[in-house]
Amino acid sequence: MTDLRWNTKLSYTTEDGIIIRGYDLIQMIGVVPFPSVLYLLFTGELPTPQTAKLIDALMVASIDHGPGAPSVLAARTAASGGAPLGAATAAGLLTLNKFHGAAVEDSMEAIQRVFALSNGETDKLDQAADTMIAEWRQVGRRISGFGHRQHKKIDPRLERLFQLAKEAEVPGVHLEAAQAIVRALKRKTSKDLPINIDGATAAILCEVNFPTSLSNALFMVARITGILAHANEEITQMPPMRRIDPVNHGYDGPPARNLPSQMMNEINPL
Amino acid sequence: MTDLRWNTKLSYTTEDGIIIRGYDLIQMIGVVPFPSVLYLLFTGELPTPQTAKLIDALMVASIDHGPGAPSVLAARTAASGGAPLGAATAAGLLTLNKFHGAAVEDSMEAIQRVFALSNGETDKLDQAADTMIAEWRQVGRRISGFGHRQHKKIDPRLERLFQLAKEAEVPGVHLEAAQAIVRALKRKTSKDLPINIDGATAAILCEVNFPTSLSNALFMVARITGILAHANEEITQMPPMRRIDPVNHGYDGPPARNLPSQMMNEINPL
Amino acid sequence: MTDLRWNTKLSYTTEDGIIIRGYDLIQMIGVVPFPSVLYLLFTGELPTPQTAKLIDALMVASIDHGPGAPSVLAARTAASGGAPLGAATAAGLLTLNKFHGAAVEDSMEAIQRVFALSNGETDKLDQAADTMIAEWRQVGRRISGFGHRQHKKIDPRLERLFQLAKEAEVPGVHLEAAQAIVRALKRKTSKDLPINIDGATAAILCEVNFPTSLSNALFMVARITGILAHANEEITQMPPMRRIDPVNHGYDGPPARNLPSQMMNEINPL
Amino acid sequence: MTDLRWNTKLSYTTEDGIIIRGYDLIQMIGVVPFPSVLYLLFTGELPTPQTAKLIDALMVASIDHGPGAPSVLAARTAASGGAPLGAATAAGLLTLNKFHGAAVEDSMEAIQRVFALSNGETDKLDQAADTMIAEWRQVGRRISGFGHRQHKKIDPRLERLFQLAKEAEVPGVHLEAAQAIVRALKRKTSKDLPINIDGATAAILCEVNFPTSLSNALFMVARITGILAHANEEITQMPPMRRIDPVNHGYDGPPARNLPSQMMNEINPL
Repeated sequence: MTDLRWNTKLSYTTEDGIIIRGYDLIQMIGVVPFPSVLYLLFTGELPTPQTAKLIDALMVASIDHGPGAPSVLAARTAASGGAPLGAATAAGLLTLNKFHGAAVEDSMEAIQRVFALSNGETDKLDQAADTMIAEWRQVGRRISGFGHRQHKKIDPRLERLFQLAKEAEVPGVHLEAAQAIVRALKRKTSKDLPINIDGATAAILCEVNFPTSLSNALFMVARITGILAHANEEITQMPPMRRIDPVNHGYDGPPARNLPSQMMNEINPL
Repeated sequence: MTDLRWNTKLSYTTEDGIIIRGYDLIQMIGVVPFPSVLYLLFTGELPTPQTAKLIDALMVASIDHGPGAPSVLAARTAASGGAPLGAATAAGLLTLNKFHGAAVEDSMEAIQRVFALSNGETDKLDQAADTMIAEWRQVGRRISGFGHRQHKKIDPRLERLFQLAKEAEVPGVHLEAAQAIVRALKRKTSKDLPINIDGATAAILCEVNFPTSLSNALFMVARITGILAHANEEITQMPPMRRIDPVNHGYDGPPARNLPSQMMNEINPL
Repeated sequence: MTDLRWNTKLSYTTEDGIIIRGYDLIQMIGVVPFPSVLYLLFTGELPTPQTAKLIDALMVASIDHGPGAPSVLAARTAASGGAPLGAATAAGLLTLNKFHGAAVEDSMEAIQRVFALSNGETDKLDQAADTMIAEWRQVGRRISGFGHRQHKKIDPRLERLFQLAKEAEVPGVHLEAAQAIVRALKRKTSKDLPINIDGATAAILCEVNFPTSLSNALFMVARITGILAHANEEITQMPPMRRIDPVNHGYDGPPARNLPSQMMNEINPL
Repeated sequence: MTDLRWNTKLSYTTEDGIIIRGYDLIQMIGVVPFPSVLYLLFTGELPTPQTAKLIDALMVASIDHGPGAPSVLAARTAASGGAPLGAATAAGLLTLNKFHGAAVEDSMEAIQRVFALSNGETDKLDQAADTMIAEWRQVGRRISGFGHRQHKKIDPRLERLFQLAKEAEVPGVHLEAAQAIVRALKRKTSKDLPINIDGATAAILCEVNFPTSLSNALFMVARITGILAHANEEITQMPPMRRIDPVNHGYDGPPARNLPSQMMNEINPL
């Protein structure tokens, strides 16, 4: 008989509980915030408080993108056929693919390549970006993370994320590499292709040494939250088998409102 | 041409950003923690700080249950066939079903039924639990949330969750209803069927008025994190098409360790 | 160590090949048609030639229902997000659910109930249908297989299927039970709710003793063919992330044409 | 308002029925066998009778590969967690990926490359195979379709498929190209890597001009049949949440038996 025993570096259960990367889950409940335990599971170590805040911010920034996102439309369509919540959400998750949400990983690789080519020297970033673009063009590889289809102006989530990255005092060189790619794309294509939410997420994840292969996993955990909310609304509020128009939809939820003032204080903490 | 216009109460995008339940997402990034924005999306309102802490704790408690969980085995098996991260995780998500993770909703309904039958009067809870059990038996409905297959002793996550619920000063009557069900099951079956993690989650979600239809959604967001970590390990570390033994596995990650002392202080805050 | 050995009644592999329900797969390749091997896998026995022809016909009748079917829209949406063929098709498969394709099983149960209540006596079918409808209404159960949303006239696939069932010399009593349900629904609701494709499939499957629990499986194998074709067209011909209108679509394939004459002869075999 | 109208070349519905690639589905029911309608949907044209028989044979050859196939294990695991039939099968479908069933497409591309390099001249096939292998090695691309993990002797399905291809009087040059790859791999690696079921399927699909991008789709339709049968057995016969051993399983179905004699005659038609 073949011995099939195998090992994981992630976790195990005991009679007394569950151990994650060496830490007892019980000790973490109510103490370590959820996004930080995610970071532990994904990277092997707990984040610093600054990194923890950035990870939480990136997850909030990705939690939903409205009813017209393809992942939401696929989940609502499955729900409309009678799929229960989990199955409808799986249809949405499968839609988070190469062209929709999966760009962060590609973008991280572009930024890391520019960083590597520059030997970490800031004044070589522009040349490194030119080289990276030439390399990728040669093998027909698309550069993700720059240019956005929907927000005509700069995506307002970006400014906030960059501000938080600054507050977290990240080293900043990967953020600069991303800006160098914007300039190099402008030189190459004469088009303005600003950093989009994928590119900003990618640059910040590079700053906090997040594993490239799990960058889209972070996005998936966040966005599946929105998908679940939409699938649940479809299941509980909408007629079965309806035709779901991908563009012609509105909003009849609570009107625009500000955060409670004690939260606003945290934003403008003067 | 049919007018297909439809409305959502959840969210919409504008040129300037994304609005969730009336709040500007930008304002929430870096200010409102991820589990609280999830609560907003799911319930329509931001949580109180006490509820926010409980939601975070419930998500941490459910984030992973080791390599032998069926959802992890399904995701690893799909990954082993060559599925990329999202597709492997979808296979795991589909496994979180009637017998695996989906018990919270059933358990909430049992607890809410006992609460309703008691008219919220504590001294009528035992009688109400007897009635609920009789009702459910009559229609052949299984009562979820009580008894656990793996931890022979009481699941240690429970004690922690109950402590946090107490600290959050929840009203407590749904927690008492859950205990009444344990006593009623003992009278009916002569078996000790203590509250398990599903039942405890259910009781606490009842305490904070979480919508029943989205209770499993909360679990899915949390657990998909663990599934992603395991699927990623399978993809990046394991040989393709290996035979995945569901029982005979070990752990070779970091050895047992304590949380950093500043975090421990939060647990033992004397 | 726990002994986890388990058995299947379906199939096993040997050094020399694969055995399905006792038959060597090699012997069947090129001899037993695919729908008949499907029947063997699902029921345990090979079909008679008459039943084989009916199963094939039912699969052809279900192979596709045009680009507006929700399962196709979900698969195309996932493909549009970048999902590869299998993942996009899985999104479509998940959409084949309670309200879309899954009606055959319910319909078989309705027909079988009428058959059972009539003790197989034709002149008691009408009364049995009234009773079945009353029973199902009482428990709030929807009767599937009658009435169709799209074809205003009788679905033309039905006439053909009924003709084939007649040619196959099936006993016919389940087909009569289905007609009895139509009459009973008319008495009860004053509405014309003719047998639809789900109901006809159900009645014919009852005639050939197909297992109820696998009726939707037959539909899934057939329809996944259409879903794959649509997902492939989306992947290879359409721009990524396009907005997929569920109604406003056309056809630019080959113009209407007749089957080759030797095939037409088989239809009109005089 | 943007005009979102789009076209498909596959099919459309009318008040009177469904048109597939120009043919009325009604005319095909009971006349054109299911695998031939699949061929029509996938390629745009009806197959010749010889090709029709080959397509049917390839689908039968792929319909199931026993209870230990990863796709079956994933589907059974999902079913064991409580997933209904469609969701469990979707988990299996997601497992049919890069390392499991998806090799046919790669293998077709290798064979077609050898064919192209040889300019269709038989005596140049060996040299063309050497070149193709060198090309693919250089870009780190794995050659699929040669060598099999399970059957130590030649997979017995192959002999049968090759015999059928001969009976169908296919041109044969792609089959020769596949044999040339076997010889070239032997020269290069000194290993015997015979054509496996994926490679044989690939060569035959090349012979009948099947579209490369849909080769795995053919496999998926066939294999999903086996996955459905296994998932159904798990749902209806097995206890929930059982540990599913991937190796230690047996068979307790009907004992070995021969096909009915009238079918055997078709095999040995003397």
